Amino acid sequence: MTAYSDLMRFQRETMALAQVAGRLGWDQETIMPRGAAPQRAEEMAAMESVLHARRMAPAVADWLMAIDEATLDDVGRANLHQIRRSHARATKVPGDLAAHIARTTSAAQGIWAGARADDDFAAFAPTLKDVIALKREEGQALAEGGDVYDAMLGDFEPGTTGADVAAMFGALRPHLSELRAAVRAAESPARLQGTFDETAQMKLTRQLAKTFGYDMSMGRVDKAVHPFSSGSGLDVRITTRTNPKDPFSCFYSTIHEVGHACYEQNISRDHLLTPLGQGVSMGVHESQSRIYENQLGRSRAFTGWLFGQMKDAFGDFGIPDAESFYACVNRVSDGFIRTEADELQYNLHVLLRFDLERALMAGDLQVDDLEAAWNDRFAADFGYAVDKPSNGVLQDVHWSVGLFGYFPTYSLGNVYAGCLHEGLRAALPQLDDDLAQGNTTPATTWLRENLQTHGGLYEPREVIERASGIVPSEAPLLRYLRAKFSDIYAL
Amino acid sequence: MTAYSDLMRFQRETMALAQVAGRLGWDQETIMPRGAAPQRAEEMAAMESVLHARRMAPAVADWLMAIDEATLDDVGRANLHQIRRSHARATKVPGDLAAHIARTTSAAQGIWAGARADDDFAAFAPTLKDVIALKREEGQALAEGGDVYDAMLGDFEPGTTGADVAAMFGALRPHLSELRAAVRAAESPARLQGTFDETAQMKLTRQLAKTFGYDMSMGRVDKAVHPFSSGSGLDVRITTRTNPKDPFSCFYSTIHEVGHACYEQNISRDHLLTPLGQGVSMGVHESQSRIYENQLGRSRAFTGWLFGQMKDAFGDFGIPDAESFYACVNRVSDGFIRTEADELQYNLHVLLRFDLERALMAGDLQVDDLEAAWNDRFAADFGYAVDKPSNGVLQDVHWSVGLFGYFPTYSLGNVYAGCLHEGLRAALPQLDDDLAQGNTTPATTWLRENLQTHGGLYEPREVIERASGIVPSEAPLLRYLRAKFSDIYAL
Repeated sequence: MTAYSDLMRFQRETMALAQVAGRLGWDQETIMPRGAAPQRAEEMAAMESVLHARRMAPAVADWLMAIDEATLDDVGRANLHQIRRSHARATKVPGDLAAHIARTTSAAQGIWAGARADDDFAAFAPTLKDVIALKREEGQALAEGGDVYDAMLGDFEPGTTGADVAAMFGALRPHLSELRAAVRAAESPARLQGTFDETAQMKLTRQLAKTFGYDMSMGRVDKAVHPFSSGSGLDVRITTRTNPKDPFSCFYSTIHEVGHACYEQNISRDHLLTPLGQGVSMGVHESQSRIYENQLGRSRAFTGWLFGQMKDAFGDFGIPDAESFYACVNRVSDGFIRTEADELQYNLHVLLRFDLERALMAGDLQVDDLEAAWNDRFAADFGYAVDKPSNGVLQDVHWSVGLFGYFPTYSLGNVYAGCLHEGLRAALPQLDDDLAQGNTTPATTWLRENLQTHGGLYEPREVIERASGIVPSEAPLLRYLRAKFSDIYAL
Repeated sequence: MTAYSDLMRFQRETMALAQVAGRLGWDQETIMPRGAAPQRAEEMAAMESVLHARRMAPAVADWLMAIDEATLDDVGRANLHQIRRSHARATKVPGDLAAHIARTTSAAQGIWAGARADDDFAAFAPTLKDVIALKREEGQALAEGGDVYDAMLGDFEPGTTGADVAAMFGALRPHLSELRAAVRAAESPARLQGTFDETAQMKLTRQLAKTFGYDMSMGRVDKAVHPFSSGSGLDVRITTRTNPKDPFSCFYSTIHEVGHACYEQNISRDHLLTPLGQGVSMGVHESQSRIYENQLGRSRAFTGWLFGQMKDAFGDFGIPDAESFYACVNRVSDGFIRTEADELQYNLHVLLRFDLERALMAGDLQVDDLEAAWNDRFAADFGYAVDKPSNGVLQDVHWSVGLFGYFPTYSLGNVYAGCLHEGLRAALPQLDDDLAQGNTTPATTWLRENLQTHGGLYEPREVIERASGIVPSEAPLLRYLRAKFSDIYAL
């Protein structure tokens, strides 16, 4: 057991250092003085260099060799499995290649931002080709003869292949597109109008965070340009934003990030600062943020309660009753931008990116054809044409920084949330009565006890199945979306 | 030059990591959620462990051996000197002893706090004996046959010996005590009365920080229980506190910390993240905080301007005119506590601690006799008796955490500030006219150009002499204090 204890002690220190690096990122996005940026870049690089060296440490390989797995319990084996995977990930990629990727993607992000500002895909294309070539090389090193895209996906969603995802997304797409067309043809609910005091937004958003079970004694809510959740264990901080015209952006960003944060806060303390002490995958993480935000936060029952809270906070804001408020919260609008999309259309954006990036990696699509491919696909799924690259192929930062295999986890999260929601409804028949009182505790307790507490103990698909009782599939999500939007839009 | 470049690259990363560790401390004292404390302790320990390993790194010894000093310029030699000192410091102390000290002082701090709360020195004495024994062992390892106390002092004030300090402080003490007795016998100015809105205090305190040249684009002002300055280079943050009854505590804590912070902010950018890129010693650091706070901030000219600012912020607060305000700011009051002492009495507190801790380390004073020795000395210097241990020997945390050799740097700072003040007055004959307008720029520019910009380039006493044109001595401080308090108290 000595090798295992030594490895875990080393690992615990590494996890603590990773928390420090993460908090440095939080500081940078929230409260850092602007002039500190150049020094901060060196501080972040120094932390990254320390963490990289620890991930590669030869001592880890020695411990892994020395451990007799038969002597370990389930938790021990799961820890070992996570450490093996992360060590293999770090050691398979040659150092020169990793450094080359870091340099190239760092420069590419700036080139992408310039090209997007100029609406000029051609200015970004050569850089994207470089990034893809390097990432493919990395993928080959990771895949060791297997599928390159699967290796990339494995960084974010271990145990899931591109073929798994393609099957699920392929089954989802025509139904989503059809439902969307029907909604577009129907009469639309009213938009929210007027202005909403930003201080009052922040006050209500903090209340909402607590309502959804976020533990403020181990967290903070601050403002940032992009909402995010940061940290694991006893210090998990979230950010949100305010826009006087759009309080829903503030409230639903907060509830979304609270979903991420509660996942991290609610992992069993037994796993604190161990490989199991953080969310098991991006997809499962997104399932928590999305079920908090959508299936709970945008439900008829909960919006009924929220309508009263908003009237208390802002007075009469022109929406006559709870039913109109529910429709307004869930209004489906035409648009080009993924991050602004409602829950009906969001997955169409993601499915598009998944198919294109998988084709790029397989060599079935060339960068020179990417803009046209994007625009054709968008027109087919959404029913109108992309007007400019910043509303199309240039809208997301991900590819410029080498994030291939990340996009599908957004929709996997929605698929998982669909499964969990059916499990939750079956377990808690009185759920809507509680939500109508602003009481999320039964729902969040169910999620904590059935999923969140396990952290990295089970593989992604396994933990979803254990919690929901459903083999992960797109069907529950589709049932949920159909029922909800057919009702709101009287289809 | 390769060994030097390699060493400096390694060192730069170490300095960046030290900045990260420091910022973690800032976060903990200002905005960290309270429930995060146990995890934070592990994060801090992990950072300390990384930094410790880098300070001890065998590669550093190899580089130090390989460097040909003759090929370096002044800056290179100064960097090398600092790295050599720090590497020697880290490698001379056996690892077991360092760990033993860390464990003992960590526990001792809690025992000291309990003993202070109970006013029971006997409850702390056995622990203090252990700390002293361990620190003496460490001092012997550092001193390698030389004076143990000198070795401890060298951690905070390199190039200065206990004998140097004893000579200076010995010359200072009778005059301070005599001046204090005369002030005590004279009529006292009015105390500040009333309550002062804490939000308005924070607003004015931020204004004061800017007035003294603190660059807010590379810093922040937040509240904390104890005011402090944290960080070097491009991210130097300060904290202050508010008390509705005592706005001077807020304003002068801020100005004091701004002195520390401006020293760090104003070091030449050439030295950023190098060993020269931080204040050269605790004494020189304190000279900056004290000259900002006292010789500038508590001057008749500047308080005249501050009086107007306070009237604008708080309305009439019962002080009739600028002259009464100046006397009120500089009022000398009886008291037991070092951290609450005015600039006349402060050094008497420090001199007491210096003599006692030096005697403890030399074995000339035993812990069992410490309380009596403290009380006798206090009565002799202050003219009244200590009423309870929490107002006497138990008031400071320093000894419990093993900080021996630190206390004298507080008064060295005052001595250095006295020298710098004479140099500054000689260089800027119109200084009072500027201060009376709330314009500190000529003074802070002089300090920046003559002292702060150099960072660690010159040894402490050398940089004071270069800047002030005066060989460091207690005489200028004494002249300043005599003139100021004779005037205010009409002696």
